[in-house]
Order: sequence, then C-alpha cells, then structure tokens
Amino acid sequence: MAGNTFGKLFRVTTAGVSHGPGYLCIIDGCPAGLDLSVEDLLPDLARRKPGQSKLTTQRDEADLPEIWSGIFEGKTDGTPIGISFRNGDQRSGDYGDIKDKYRPGHADYTFDAKYGFRDYRGGGRTSARETVCRVAAGAVAKKLLARENIRVLGYVKQVGSVIADIPDPTAVTLEQVEASPTRCPISATAAEMESLIDAVRMDRDSIGGACELVAVGVPPGLGEPVFDKLKADLGKALLSLPAVLGFEYGAGFAVASMRGSENNDLFSPNPIHTDTNRHGGMLGGISSGMPIVCRVAIKPTSSIPRSQKTVTRSGEPTDILVRGRHDPCLLPRFVPMGEAMMALVLIDHLLRSRSSKLK
Amino acid sequence: MAGNTFGKLFRVTTAGVSHGPGYLCIIDGCPAGLDLSVEDLLPDLARRKPGQSKLTTQRDEADLPEIWSGIFEGKTDGTPIGISFRNGDQRSGDYGDIKDKYRPGHADYTFDAKYGFRDYRGGGRTSARETVCRVAAGAVAKKLLARENIRVLGYVKQVGSVIADIPDPTAVTLEQVEASPTRCPISATAAEMESLIDAVRMDRDSIGGACELVAVGVPPGLGEPVFDKLKADLGKALLSLPAVLGFEYGAGFAVASMRGSENNDLFSPNPIHTDTNRHGGMLGGISSGMPIVCRVAIKPTSSIPRSQKTVTRSGEPTDILVRGRHDPCLLPRFVPMGEAMMALVLIDHLLRSRSSKLK
Amino acid sequence: MAGNTFGKLFRVTTAGVSHGPGYLCIIDGCPAGLDLSVEDLLPDLARRKPGQSKLTTQRDEADLPEIWSGIFEGKTDGTPIGISFRNGDQRSGDYGDIKDKYRPGHADYTFDAKYGFRDYRGGGRTSARETVCRVAAGAVAKKLLARENIRVLGYVKQVGSVIADIPDPTAVTLEQVEASPTRCPISATAAEMESLIDAVRMDRDSIGGACELVAVGVPPGLGEPVFDKLKADLGKALLSLPAVLGFEYGAGFAVASMRGSENNDLFSPNPIHTDTNRHGGMLGGISSGMPIVCRVAIKPTSSIPRSQKTVTRSGEPTDILVRGRHDPCLLPRFVPMGEAMMALVLIDHLLRSRSSKLK
Amino acid sequence: MAGNTFGKLFRVTTAGVSHGPGYLCIIDGCPAGLDLSVEDLLPDLARRKPGQSKLTTQRDEADLPEIWSGIFEGKTDGTPIGISFRNGDQRSGDYGDIKDKYRPGHADYTFDAKYGFRDYRGGGRTSARETVCRVAAGAVAKKLLARENIRVLGYVKQVGSVIADIPDPTAVTLEQVEASPTRCPISATAAEMESLIDAVRMDRDSIGGACELVAVGVPPGLGEPVFDKLKADLGKALLSLPAVLGFEYGAGFAVASMRGSENNDLFSPNPIHTDTNRHGGMLGGISSGMPIVCRVAIKPTSSIPRSQKTVTRSGEPTDILVRGRHDPCLLPRFVPMGEAMMALVLIDHLLRSRSSKLK
Repeated sequence: MAGNTFGKLFRVTTAGVSHGPGYLCIIDGCPAGLDLSVEDLLPDLARRKPGQSKLTTQRDEADLPEIWSGIFEGKTDGTPIGISFRNGDQRSGDYGDIKDKYRPGHADYTFDAKYGFRDYRGGGRTSARETVCRVAAGAVAKKLLARENIRVLGYVKQVGSVIADIPDPTAVTLEQVEASPTRCPISATAAEMESLIDAVRMDRDSIGGACELVAVGVPPGLGEPVFDKLKADLGKALLSLPAVLGFEYGAGFAVASMRGSENNDLFSPNPIHTDTNRHGGMLGGISSGMPIVCRVAIKPTSSIPRSQKTVTRSGEPTDILVRGRHDPCLLPRFVPMGEAMMALVLIDHLLRSRSSKLK
Repeated sequence: MAGNTFGKLFRVTTAGVSHGPGYLCIIDGCPAGLDLSVEDLLPDLARRKPGQSKLTTQRDEADLPEIWSGIFEGKTDGTPIGISFRNGDQRSGDYGDIKDKYRPGHADYTFDAKYGFRDYRGGGRTSARETVCRVAAGAVAKKLLARENIRVLGYVKQVGSVIADIPDPTAVTLEQVEASPTRCPISATAAEMESLIDAVRMDRDSIGGACELVAVGVPPGLGEPVFDKLKADLGKALLSLPAVLGFEYGAGFAVASMRGSENNDLFSPNPIHTDTNRHGGMLGGISSGMPIVCRVAIKPTSSIPRSQKTVTRSGEPTDILVRGRHDPCLLPRFVPMGEAMMALVLIDHLLRSRSSKLK
Repeated sequence: MAGNTFGKLFRVTTAGVSHGPGYLCIIDGCPAGLDLSVEDLLPDLARRKPGQSKLTTQRDEADLPEIWSGIFEGKTDGTPIGISFRNGDQRSGDYGDIKDKYRPGHADYTFDAKYGFRDYRGGGRTSARETVCRVAAGAVAKKLLARENIRVLGYVKQVGSVIADIPDPTAVTLEQVEASPTRCPISATAAEMESLIDAVRMDRDSIGGACELVAVGVPPGLGEPVFDKLKADLGKALLSLPAVLGFEYGAGFAVASMRGSENNDLFSPNPIHTDTNRHGGMLGGISSGMPIVCRVAIKPTSSIPRSQKTVTRSGEPTDILVRGRHDPCLLPRFVPMGEAMMALVLIDHLLRSRSSKLK
Repeated sequence: MAGNTFGKLFRVTTAGVSHGPGYLCIIDGCPAGLDLSVEDLLPDLARRKPGQSKLTTQRDEADLPEIWSGIFEGKTDGTPIGISFRNGDQRSGDYGDIKDKYRPGHADYTFDAKYGFRDYRGGGRTSARETVCRVAAGAVAKKLLARENIRVLGYVKQVGSVIADIPDPTAVTLEQVEASPTRCPISATAAEMESLIDAVRMDRDSIGGACELVAVGVPPGLGEPVFDKLKADLGKALLSLPAVLGFEYGAGFAVASMRGSENNDLFSPNPIHTDTNRHGGMLGGISSGMPIVCRVAIKPTSSIPRSQKTVTRSGEPTDILVRGRHDPCLLPRFVPMGEAMMALVLIDHLLRSRSSKLK
C-alpha cells in the first residue's frame, strides 16, 4: 500500500534513492519465452539519462543496469526479473540548505509531514532518478508489445509557447524524434524550442512544456469497464511521473467547448474504424483499435539557480538557493519516461484481456 | 482484475446494468463506529439522479438505496456495507437499432470486440446509471472525511465557451452550487450556461464542459511516493468516470508555458503554507495542506437526436438515430459524481497514511 | 484490506449478516460466454442449506438467490455477476444472553476487541450463513472448470473416531457422497457416523471431523512459484472457512515421520505421471497433473445446548446457555463449502496461468 | 499475479535464483522511524544458512545482505527497503542429469509444464535459497513486532517418530531452541533427533518432521473476518514455504475426534482470557489475545543420494542420481523461515488493524 508497485499482471516494484547505493527494480509477471538481454534496456536508458545534450556527452556509468534474474539462456523464464542500478560516487557532502529548508516546488515539506523526517540528500525517494527503473521496465514492456505489433512513441509537443503542429501523430518516427536534443520531431520547431531553452537557462530560469504519446497497433478490447478503464490507468501512470500536472487524450480539454455533432467520431467499414480520432483510441475506456493519443503537461523545473523565499523546518522565514545542475526544461528527458509508463499500462491490460472471454 | 473494484483500504465494488434488475455495491473497509443511515446517502443521490431540472422534478423511485449490511444500531460495524438499487420498470422493448448498429461515441463496438457480444439494452454496464453506486459510496466517504474536517465540493466551471471566473475556489459554498440547475456557483454565468444548454437542445445537439473540484482541510502527508501519488490516484478516479477526456490540477496545462520563477509556490510561516497554490495542494504527489484543486474536461453527450453515419455489427455502412431522452449537457449531474470519486481517493489515502509512521 | 474479497482474477466479494436483510455477492472476472442461470447455483446451495436431513426437510426459502447482473441472454457477459440472498423473517427477538456474554468458541470477544462493539444477532458477520455466497460463487467456478474437464468433489472422511477408508479418492462419485445425509461415500461408515452424530446430539453435545477434497483433471502448471503456490492458496481458502483448524494435502502430516525414500513419488512415462501421489498433485506448489487431494479438520460445533462458564462484556464471570438449534456436527454441510473454495482457487489459478507463457 | 509479492500493507517482493547473480528483496510499507541496520538481519540469516552444524561451521559469505535503501541515518524512512544477496561463485558446471531428467519430489516437471522450459541450475527459482529474502524481511517484521511486545518463536517439535513433549509452548526460550543444532528445545529429545538424523544420513536417506511456532503478546483483534482470517493468512504463509505439506493451529487435526464440550475454551476474567488454548489464539479467525500456536508438517528432503526411477523431459524412462550435498532433515533450518512468515503475517495484520475503528 506504500505505492512502490505498479500494475496488476505485469507488476513493477522499485526501491532506491538518488544518494544511496542505488536502485532495485523487480518486474513480476513477464511471460516466459521472450528473448531479452541487458542490451534491450540500454537504448531507452540512454534517452533518459542526464548529460545527453551536445554540452554534456560523457557517459554516466551509473545508469548501467545489472540483471539478477528472470532470464535463462537468453529468454525470460517466467520468474521475476531483478534489475539493479548502482549509483555513482555521491559527494558525501554538505546538503546544509536542503536539509533544513524547504525547496519551493519540491516534496521536502510534504515528506517531512508524512514521515516525520526525510532523506534530504538530493531529493531522496522523490528524485527523478527513480525513473531509471520505470524506463528499464518499460523497455521490457515495449519488447513484449512489439511482438503484437504495438508501438509506443512519444515526442515533445510544446515548450513554453512554442507548439509543434503535428497533424498526424501516427506518422512521427523515432528517427524524427531523436534527430533533435529537444525530442520535438518537427525540425524547425525543435530549433525554436532549443533557442528558448537556451534563453531560459541564460536567464537562470526553467520552462515547462507538453509531451504527446502515441500507441499504434493496439487491438480493440483493452481496458476494463468502470474503474480500470484504459484511459484511467493511462492517466494514473502518467500522472505518477514527477512534474506532470495534467493529462488528456484525444480531443482532451478541447471537448469542453465542443458540440456532440462535431465531437462524435463516426464509424466506417472495412475494417470497422472511425473516420476521425477525437476519442483518442478509447471508447468507454476500452481501446477501439484506433491510435491511442494522449498528452501530458509538465511543469518548469522547480530547482532554479535563484534565491527563493521559503521557510526552515522549524518554520522560520528564510531564503534558499538550490545548488547543483538542473535541466532548464524537463521535456526532452521526459519522453522515454512517458513512453515507459504507456507501455507498462498497455502490456498489463493486454495480459488482463486474456481473461475476457472463454477460450 | 476485471476492474469493478476501486480503492485499496476503502474499497468499493459494484455490479449491475441499466436495464437489468438493478445495481449492487459493496463498500469494504469503512472503519467501525461511524453514525450512518440511508438518509446520509440521499442528498448526493438526489443531485446525481436524472430529471432534477425545472422541467422534470418528480421523484425517480429507482434511485432509492437499500442497505443490506454494515450498519448496526445506527453505526458502521466494520463489516462490509452492502447497498442495492432496484431499477425501475424497464421497457422490455425494442432496442433494434442499438442492438445491431454501433452508436458513435459509445462503447458498443469496443464491448463487442472485448467480450464477443454485449448487453445492448441502454448501454448495459457502460450506462452512467452505474454511478449511483459511486455516489452512494462517496457519500459514506464524505461523512468520514467530515469527521476530520475535510470538505469536498465541485461545481461547473465551463459549458461550451462560457467559463466561470472563480478566483478563490475555496470560497464557493454548496448553497451557491445548488442555487442553479447548472451547478455553476456564479449566478450570472449560470444563467448564460443555462441559455446555452437550452439552445443546444433546441438544436438537437449536445455540449461539453469542465468541472472543478476542491478539497479543503486535507492534512499534509496524504499520498504515497512514486506510483500511488495522490495526483495519480485522483487522476485515475476522475478519468474512470464516463465522458471525462482530461484531468489537471493546480495550474494544470497552463504550466506548459510557464517559467519556474513564476510557477514555484513560495513557502511562508505560521503555520507553514504557500502563498500561492499553483501546485493545487500536492507536491511530489503528496498533499501539502493547501486546498486540492483539480479540473476535468467532459465531452458533449454522445447520444444526440440526429441521424449519424455508422456501421452494423457485421460491418455494413448504415445510419443510426439514437432514441430516448438524453441530457444535452452532462455537467450538472457530473458534479456529485466527481465529488464522490475525489472523496473515495481521499479517504483511501487517509487510511493508508495511518501506516506511514511508527505509533 | 478488510478481507471481504477472495481471488485475484476471479474475484468474489461478499457482504451481509445472518440477521439483517440478507447477503450480497459480486463475482468479478468471470470470462464472457459461459452458459449460466440461477438453476446452476441451486444444487450446491441445496447441499449447503440447513434443514436437509430426514428430520427437517421443508424448503428454506431464504436461500433462493437473485441474480442482478452479469448474464445476458443466458450467457455471462464479462461484467460482474451480482447475486443477493434475502434472509427469511428473523425474530426481532431477545438476544439478551449473547448480547452481553461471550459464547465460548465463538468470535464474540474477538469482534468486540477489534471493532469496539459487535452485531450480536446470531453471530452477525461470523455466521456460517455467509457461506451461501461462497457456495454460489463456487458453483460458477465449478461450471467454468467443467468446461476444462476439471471436477471438484468433497466428502466426509472422519466424524469423531469413525474414519472412512477410501484408498482411491478419485473413484468416489457425487452419487455416493449424496447417498447419505452424512456425505460419507462409504455406506457402512456413513451409518456409523450417523449413529455417532445422533448419540452426540442426544448427549447435548457436538462432534468434530475431517473432510477430504479431490480435484481431478487439473492440468500441470497451475500455481505460482514462491508465495502464491497452489498449496498455499488452497490452504488459505479452506482455512478461511469457519471451524477449520487444520489443512494438509497429499501425505500431509504423515510426512513428518517418513523418509525421503518412501515419500518421493517416482515418475513414469506415457504420459508423464507419478506412480504414487503422496505429493497430492502439487510439486513446488504447482499442479503436477495428478489428482489434487487435501483434507481439513473441522472442530465440533461451538454452540452446544449446555450451560458453559464464560464472562460478560464488562468482565464479570457468569454462565451462558446458547439457545437455538445447531448442527451437532458441521461436516455434512461443510462439503459443498469446501468444494466451493477449492473451485475458486483452481479457476483463479487457471486464469492466472494464461499469462505464464508468450502466446 | 505471478506470486512474488507477499502481504497487503507490509509487502515483500523477491526475485532471484540459486545459480544466478543473487537475490533482490524489496520491503514496502515499513513505517518510518524504526531503528534498523544490516546487523538486525544477521542473526536470523545465520540461523537459516547452510553449514551451521558442528560438521560445517565456516561462514558462507554469500548470505551477506546489502541494504540499498529505506534507511536514513539509522532509521527506516518510509521508503521501500531494498536488499540484495550476492550468490557465491557457482560452478558453471555440468548440470546434465538435472537438465534433462525430472528429480522426484522436485518442481522440475511442473516448471517445464508451466513455462515451457526451466532454469535447471540447482532448482532455479524453486531453490530454498530463496528464503534468504523471507528471513531478512521477517527480521524487520520481528523488530517492529518487538516494539509492541509481540515475540515470535519456533522450534522443532518432531523428527521422524521422535516427538518433543512441550506442554507449555510459551515457556520455550530462544536460548533453549538454539542450544541444539536440531533446534528442539528439550535437550534429551534433541539428542534423540540428532541421532536419528545422523542414522538417516548414513543410510543415504532423509527424514521429515514438524515445527511448532508460537507468538505471544499478540493483542486481540488482529485478522479480518471472512476471507482474510488470521488463521487463513498464517496457513497460506507457512504453506508457501518449500516442503510444507500441512498446517494446523491450536488443537489442530485432533479436533476431528473431539466433542464440543471438551474442545470449547471457557472464558475467565481479570483480564478476559480463556483457561485453555485449544483455539490456538484465534477465534473466528481473529486473535483472542491468547498465544498463537501452530504447527507445520515438513516432508523429508526430496534430494537423496540414491538412484531413483524417473523420466526424461522427452518422456523416456530412466534413473537419476541427484548430486550435491543436501540436508538429511530440513527441520533445523526451517525454524527461522517459519518464524519469518509468521512475523510477516502478524505485522501485516497489525497495520491493517489500524483501520478497524474510527480514531
């Protein structure tokens, strides 16, 4: 109940903090027989890790996974897949300010309230470094999905007021996404975003954005009626990621100002499909066979290199200057995290759907 | 795994369809000792039920709950609370068109794909009548929350392009919400919304909108790190309701174009709080003690009294005219449903938080 | 977490007490497409209900189930199956003694300790009447199992010191079991048991016994390694029934005095099987394809028509004479309850096994 | 659903096999604030590990746990406790016989049936080495229980036909248990058991036995009515351990031949308790405040140094001689495993009981 497990049939459990020895991840419920090795995890881990941009290209060894179990002679064997990530050497150093003051936008205060104290070293359990586990598990999920011709892809849709115009989300390719360090697939827009991020950094500030995620090849029938609708589980999965403040699918918030006659997607034959996809691939919370398209809003990085007003643990007013290097924009590294969570939800519901009918 | 249970410690399980004998609801995990009777369920059920507007005020007996268990001598006794709702007499009638044709915007096609066939009578399990169970369970949750001085309230924020300006969501009262059949607390805006809904109905169409939900009095520390963040569980809860296409909290999608320096909420003392609430009462997915504020986008009713293009079950192109009376706008009746789901999440996390620390 | 749901993929949730309006049962996760009607539930419910013996043959209407949902046009439709059982008219009478004194062997004291008070009318939630729900759900499970040629059957193995000698548990038929009101399939032993029970009743006492349960046709491969071994889930299922104080399978407690060379079951070919079945059909907690055979020990009825020493709620020493008619031996009616729990475990693991391998 | 997680509020998830890199264990739900270090895990791990007897006393480094997370400045911090156990150097050697032939009494055949293939190196996931994780998690649970003055202790009750006479299980001390390598607290009986085990080993055979487990100090009120009775969860926990074929509590199977008048435990005052404890500390599946006493039957080690008849994977008849050193009797090392599972169930229900009543 303490919230460190995700999924019902394909279950991911994680432990670890950013400034301890490292992270553990256990994936339970992966069917036996999947070809899998550590190499399958590396590409998405590389997309997730810090220091990817042209400015910081050196490899960060700390993201190298070790697989402890679950694979035998190159195939998953039905037993849980155990993975660890050793943290690099941490400065055993001086966390003074963070220790006794609450960083605005962070969970420092809420952790103290919840547990009575907190691991103040670099965010502890709330550090986004925790997503290494999610991305590794997501890579396994993606490989299972690929066997069923389901592909999950994300990209940066918006940074600040720069918005990419992508009329057909299903036409975007991984190559287009990876062509720019921003992970926006439209090169002109990507350049604009890059300039904006640079400007924001120079300004000792940060900037928010939005990520769009697309799954193609999802068969109709995934998702359970009532509480475990596919849309609900996707929403939960993505909102569980750090910094996400909103989730929408299909037409999303735009439906608030639409009429039924313009919003309804009409059915056509051969094979049965809808002409439009304002329903984002889900009707009644169950996949329709149309592409699943959703978007999430991500706040600007809370850690900015400016002095900010706050209070101490004992409630005294003070100022805080958060040290360390922080991404001025979370969006580029968010893409593989979002894909991972979408993939985890889809494989879980795919396995669940095996009990929908008599065989 | 079939998705008809919600919650971890305060668990709601439901069964039933709109055109069968009725609905069953089992609430498991309600602590013993709460004063409770069927009267506690009636106000929110009345807000949820069809036919409330000035045009149709007669009582619909079918929403009368019967409590089977879980209360002894006026108090909850720790055993599961069983509730049933008997459906009124259903026309055993002719569902011809719905039976063989897929209604646009509905789950007809996706149910057929999932189960191989479906209950075609009035939507079956996907009927929004299923929310009687949620609203009844939510009323129990609200009563438990009230003991801890936590109040949950929702209202209609937007219908079509009419948007209510509500600078302080915590100042809205239940009386203001209930003053208008639209459940918009600003009377002038409510009147505009009412006119718009009337116009849409005359036009044989429907209209979408947005609902805002507010919880005040939530102590800091609710929500679990990583996967079961409070924001994630709220998102899932609300996205599990019919017709919801988006969820956001605090500044929501607006953060996509914000800078960290304008988005961060700064801390102040006596007692510790933030000056602003762009974080919507949750930091790191854990409640901060500030009001929890979120919004959901609701699509226009899919059933509109117009002929629409579709296909038959066997894949032939055809047209369909969905009969029966349908709300031209779902928003007014959505409010108690949204409140119920928010209350269910909060009570669940309140009970979960009892294990956070050593006693 | 309050323990009123059983199963992971085939989930049964119940509510109700013996002296309230009745019981609700929701079965979630039954695959769509199973022919099912209320008639399928009646035979096992008849085997379970009180008053079956020659002495009391009148039909007890209170055990008539009403199905609220989950079946459409004679088939399960994938949505939850809701069932209710209306209790008969209860004497609104005088529970005085039970109200304020703790019955030996019952849960009166432990309920008070847990919840602060209790429903003292006839046992409340601890009444064995609760098993109507289990037996109904078990009947659905049995029907699903029958499609896979899996049969579950129980019988009375022991009453007091009278023990039936049944060298081949798989050869016992339902007809043999039902031939005697004792549900012991060996007629001579059954007669002895009947005499013993009669004698015990005349003596204003009760007597314990043991029930053996057998599943044939279970394919190899059901059960999960480590925590959710099939033996563990069977043990839990049967120990969750009232009055069960022990569970063993295969050679059971006899293994404590055996040597490996006599206990190991050796494998033979065509098809692969073991020559003997001391492992009770489970190796490493996973079904081996051999018959699953287990036994449970059931205590003598705690309610006996004698005055017994006890204490009042306030801790005063006193005596209690429990009124009402009670079975002098629980065994005959236990058989369908035990079968139901075994069937629920098997169908749950059968559905779970669908995710063991890649398709 | 693949069964590698135990518990609801205090959750243990494990991964690993005996001949891979090692084991991972994640404990989720430990309340914050408990003093904990790796030293707290070592005593029980030492009691569990192979090679403890006078014949083999050298330390097996492979059982040294590494704690990755969940402890900050010497106290649990509410986040999941990650633990790893690195396996020692494994002979990368020749598993020929085990690879293609099914060992009698082992899960080789059932794993192949379930997953299509199996890790044949030393038992893979079914190796009892998996219990290192359980014992480590159990040590944490024991420490939490100790804060509430609850003590869990096990001992060897029976080996073959040698049975210890222990009239008062609550009087046994850890020192008495640890005084003999057999873990039987009665020294004369322990000596007999030791002789028997020696004789069995000389005879190239193995021998079964029974372990008794006792919890004192458990407050009344733990356990949930109906499905999650404390007795049911204890039964599941203990039956999930390798080689356990039976579970009983209190009077256990002896109740089958008892009368109600001799079995009922009568209540006495000051404070309320029962004069006898045939109910083993649980009434209606809920703890009564009396000591919880249960026993499990453990089969003789399946691996015996004799040639045994079996079949190959392809179904050919053959013989197999299982190599390697194996305990001739599992009982002495079982004790800490049984204690661990009992402790895990008790702490889980203790946390669950925090939601039983209104605060």
